[in-house]
Amino acid sequence: MATVEWDAGAGGVRLIDQTRLPDEEAYVVCRTAAEVAAAIRDMVVRGAPAIGAAAGYGTALAAREGRLAEGVALIRAARPTARDLFWAVERVERAADPLEEAHHIARESIEACREIGRHGAAVLPPRARIVTICNTGALATVDYGTGLGVIRAAHEHGGEPFVYALETRPRAQGARLTTWELRRLGIPHRLIADGAAGLLLQRGMVDAAISGADRVCANGDVVNKVGTYPLALLCREHGVPFYVAAPCSTIDDATPDGAAVVIEERSADEVTTFAPPGTEAWNPAFDVTPAHLVTALITERGVQR
Amino acid sequence: MATVEWDAGAGGVRLIDQTRLPDEEAYVVCRTAAEVAAAIRDMVVRGAPAIGAAAGYGTALAAREGRLAEGVALIRAARPTARDLFWAVERVERAADPLEEAHHIARESIEACREIGRHGAAVLPPRARIVTICNTGALATVDYGTGLGVIRAAHEHGGEPFVYALETRPRAQGARLTTWELRRLGIPHRLIADGAAGLLLQRGMVDAAISGADRVCANGDVVNKVGTYPLALLCREHGVPFYVAAPCSTIDDATPDGAAVVIEERSADEVTTFAPPGTEAWNPAFDVTPAHLVTALITERGVQR
Repeated sequence: MATVEWDAGAGGVRLIDQTRLPDEEAYVVCRTAAEVAAAIRDMVVRGAPAIGAAAGYGTALAAREGRLAEGVALIRAARPTARDLFWAVERVERAADPLEEAHHIARESIEACREIGRHGAAVLPPRARIVTICNTGALATVDYGTGLGVIRAAHEHGGEPFVYALETRPRAQGARLTTWELRRLGIPHRLIADGAAGLLLQRGMVDAAISGADRVCANGDVVNKVGTYPLALLCREHGVPFYVAAPCSTIDDATPDGAAVVIEERSADEVTTFAPPGTEAWNPAFDVTPAHLVTALITERGVQR
Repeated sequence: MATVEWDAGAGGVRLIDQTRLPDEEAYVVCRTAAEVAAAIRDMVVRGAPAIGAAAGYGTALAAREGRLAEGVALIRAARPTARDLFWAVERVERAADPLEEAHHIARESIEACREIGRHGAAVLPPRARIVTICNTGALATVDYGTGLGVIRAAHEHGGEPFVYALETRPRAQGARLTTWELRRLGIPHRLIADGAAGLLLQRGMVDAAISGADRVCANGDVVNKVGTYPLALLCREHGVPFYVAAPCSTIDDATPDGAAVVIEERSADEVTTFAPPGTEAWNPAFDVTPAHLVTALITERGVQR
């Protein structure tokens, strides 16, 4: 499975359609910057590093179309919160060979994830019971994963991890994507409702929590999928380490802290799945985990406590 | 709307079928203790005080059938966590006139809820923005509600409350039932994903949290719908009062603390709604909010801090 991959024959970037998983494994090819922007906006591709890689290819497509400024504007407007998107666009925009630069970003992402996995697996005890939120696996990256990459590395090294995956409403990335990946990897797991994290921590059922990040601010605040902050607070309350796994491209020195980040608010109908027609909802996609709740940041450069 | 009501003509207890709300307003009549036990087990009737009233009528039906011990055993085995069930069964079991005692329980529940509402509304500031979990309205009681009864009383007294209702996965009682009741009452509200409570508190968007209770232990620990404990922890972190509204029948002096309560674990398929077929899940229905996180317990006798 390749989440984001250049298709030279088709002359575009090929994405696994994450909106159709786990029911169907379908792929789409985006041949223009506008198509890439739409795929990011509609969450065909999601997860900060995967969005970054797709945005890099989208910018290269914009350059090929001879409409760089226009294409870049579309991509930048697709989603506001993930740092990797803006970082990738800027790298490719400045490059002498945009497509080559987009390839670099994609390859570097895979390497970074493997290093994140290697560093992260080393901090986990044997047979670690881990709680995780959203999807931070191969699907969220170009390959291998960040948070799930750490768990995968532990599994590959014989560490026998066991995972509790939060459902992660409203889009249920934990239920739809994380369980799908864990099963393919043969890693034992249980799905739990988001609200069940309290009893899980209360009962001492986990040794560590691992999340990804959409943006790490200069002061260490972590912007990630909504629900991450309550999980981190539970971890502190119960003395369980809370790890954040993300590539350095997610770290944004230009954003001083979480309060300075635009939190994307999405359509109410993502939340109203079970509600009577016409119910109004508030649907923020991210929250802010204050730096003091983060035990360590695991990047490709090592474990930063 | 009557959640639990004796139907003299039919010779049974009439329940609104909560599994079919909000799509359909359908009623079922239970004429035997076994039918009441099944309605409790299958969550046709849910919410601690409503379960208590139904259990009272079920016990009266068991007495009428001349199979008291057998009927009571069925009802006691229907669900393990809510205190009101056992309390109601014991009251009706001992009574000279079982049906009359069941009527007393139902009438007392309505009166208790109105008193809870009156006491609770007095602690809320004007135009209070309130977050609530699960359903604690008329549907969870015989009428009027506990947590939602407080909000309803504030609304009736011109207090202009605004409610954020947690979806409350996996059964989505907040999305299905609380929004339905709030709309009928004309109380402005927004539905939010369970994980969004973190950002809600972080942003200072609420003045108080109100939950119900399935059991209040002797030491003040509150056993309630899974997800209540994380909400209470967020409230403490952000200096927001966390109120528990429940009738005195929910207080169980025989249970020393939350650790002594059997937490019901329900079928995995409630959690796997969005997951690939065969996904394993862990589905506890309740958690324990330690007494020190509860700002006040609101009962029909007043506000106990």
